[in-house]
Amino acid sequence: MSQVRYGIIGIGNMGSGHASILTSGKINGAVLTAVCDEFESKRDWAKEHFGGSVAVFENADAMIDSGLVDAVIVATPHYGHPSEAIAAFAKGMHVLIEKPAGVYAKQVREMNDAAAASGRKFGIVYNQRMNPLYKKLRELIASGEIGEVRRINWIITNWYRTQAYYDSGTWRATWAGEGGGVLINQCPHQLDLWQWTTGMMPTRMRAFCQFGKHRDIEVENDVTAYAEYANGATAVFITSTSDAPGTNRLEVSGSRGKIVIEEERMTLYRLREDEAEFNARNKESFASPEVWKIELPASGPSPEHAGILQNFTDAVLLGTPLAAPGEEGIHGLTLSNAMHLSTWLDDWVDLPLDEALHEAELNKRIATSKFKRAQPVEAKR
Amino acid sequence: MSQVRYGIIGIGNMGSGHASILTSGKINGAVLTAVCDEFESKRDWAKEHFGGSVAVFENADAMIDSGLVDAVIVATPHYGHPSEAIAAFAKGMHVLIEKPAGVYAKQVREMNDAAAASGRKFGIVYNQRMNPLYKKLRELIASGEIGEVRRINWIITNWYRTQAYYDSGTWRATWAGEGGGVLINQCPHQLDLWQWTTGMMPTRMRAFCQFGKHRDIEVENDVTAYAEYANGATAVFITSTSDAPGTNRLEVSGSRGKIVIEEERMTLYRLREDEAEFNARNKESFASPEVWKIELPASGPSPEHAGILQNFTDAVLLGTPLAAPGEEGIHGLTLSNAMHLSTWLDDWVDLPLDEALHEAELNKRIATSKFKRAQPVEAKR
Repeated sequence: MSQVRYGIIGIGNMGSGHASILTSGKINGAVLTAVCDEFESKRDWAKEHFGGSVAVFENADAMIDSGLVDAVIVATPHYGHPSEAIAAFAKGMHVLIEKPAGVYAKQVREMNDAAAASGRKFGIVYNQRMNPLYKKLRELIASGEIGEVRRINWIITNWYRTQAYYDSGTWRATWAGEGGGVLINQCPHQLDLWQWTTGMMPTRMRAFCQFGKHRDIEVENDVTAYAEYANGATAVFITSTSDAPGTNRLEVSGSRGKIVIEEERMTLYRLREDEAEFNARNKESFASPEVWKIELPASGPSPEHAGILQNFTDAVLLGTPLAAPGEEGIHGLTLSNAMHLSTWLDDWVDLPLDEALHEAELNKRIATSKFKRAQPVEAKR
Repeated sequence: MSQVRYGIIGIGNMGSGHASILTSGKINGAVLTAVCDEFESKRDWAKEHFGGSVAVFENADAMIDSGLVDAVIVATPHYGHPSEAIAAFAKGMHVLIEKPAGVYAKQVREMNDAAAASGRKFGIVYNQRMNPLYKKLRELIASGEIGEVRRINWIITNWYRTQAYYDSGTWRATWAGEGGGVLINQCPHQLDLWQWTTGMMPTRMRAFCQFGKHRDIEVENDVTAYAEYANGATAVFITSTSDAPGTNRLEVSGSRGKIVIEEERMTLYRLREDEAEFNARNKESFASPEVWKIELPASGPSPEHAGILQNFTDAVLLGTPLAAPGEEGIHGLTLSNAMHLSTWLDDWVDLPLDEALHEAELNKRIATSKFKRAQPVEAKR
């Protein structure tokens, strides 16, 4: 294979974004050959926009069966990601899915099993993993630069969304349409980075979701979550869509220092001696280890979606390791599911998650939803 | 009365600090006439240090009965603050107590009742209320500059304490000796400022105290607390004594903007229009209110303890309003008690606090303490 022929499933906001990158010629070894969408208006737009250079289909089956594509990008509404991916793997496709991996962990686990059985490449559009800031954070933590991780605080509230936003799609911010709010729609990248950069998943969580806060919606749009880890570390994750202006500040504190990322800058506070060692030898009542404040060099812009598309293409053509393996999508989703479940049960939730219990509780919300909206009338944006 | 004659109860670290300020001549209308301490070594130090210009007594009764003092400063270990204050009010003294107001809210309520019945001045050494930064924060919030308060995040982890510190007094960090750890000893100022600057007390709290984390002590030295308010606002308060280096960052977000205090700087992010009004009139899917980032002018140094002593003296002599009325000490202590109780019960705690339940649970910890240490052998530092 000299180039990967891509087909996009769902040509809404995200799908058309990927199409734009693929047709720009920026991705070596990649070509967009087809798209599909269940909505006629989207197909009409695609025909007009691509002017015949890209085949347009009504559904993924027809697109894949045409023989025109080697890989698909799944950019449908969240609920459909696992089923579309599973169907594509069954037809021998390589699959790149949009985030989130799905809405509930149980369906994502089935997708992961299908991916493993297929032997095909499976990626997820965690484009924030291409951001040099977070790559650096992960590398610094993995190399022991701040010692043992002890505390993680992430305030990520800069997701301002108005009522007009929520009213712009009948599926938006409903249990049936999206399966959640800020955790499912806005935060998947941060929920991924939280555990990817630190290499740690909590052992239990206690979360406080507020539903329809300052907005007429039924799902969560304000969340404070507390997490505990096997090594005694703790974390707090705070997110919201009604704070203006919001904050994006991540602090990771370890036995040998602290890293703070805020306003696209990373600062390392490095101890000359591990705190535990200092504490063990110190005899003075008031003393503390020497700290160096280090402004880390700027890391340059992130290749974002283009970076993910190039990496996935290279993985298919050259066997390059995936920056964001699709199987890893379940980790961030599990954190999100645990936050919902903890709030619904008003109790601790242990990890690994009881995925069947989460699904059952989610289904209760769908069944009793006061926002009985239609199925999505537009592809995901 | 042309000057206030002060007597200090407990001449340890804090008591000797107040003595130093009073004898410096910096406080108009104040004179130090006496001190008392139950420990001979402290009395010897006082006699030598003050060289006869200050009378030295074995206990507060003898000092007050001498007729040499009009007002007392209570600087004993925490548990003794209410009982010393109540005894002094009974003898007609004006009383200024060190923080915390006490160890459990029930005893502090009794002290407040005694103060009210006495008609004397009652103050608490909340010297951080003299800090221009926090005075300004309170004034900005009270004047509506950021609209309705919606979120408060305080990360106050810059209390690094070593094992040597904890080993420096047998009463330290024990249930019987201090009645708590970082919440009782290090954080009373922040627990006061949290509710004093915002003018809000939570309606319920869920807290996660970790006891003896990275240190051989029995009390809490790492705390994450979540609070909810009547208006739907939420708060997170995080503190620790083993983070190095720690953080001190306070963020208060409202419907009309956000204030961040970090590294002694205050930044105001002000919306040109209240978020709720903007949201109500906005028709666009993606839009947000205009934000002005405003670096507020530096506020100069805080008068700290000298400021509190001058204010208390002026209150006695001139009727000047107290910056930190003693009765208000119960608010911060209630937050601290609620955090302990929530952790002990592993559940929500509603406010107003069930003070009897808190006291009973505290007494259980004292009774089953593994750190059976002697009563304090030195005055509080």
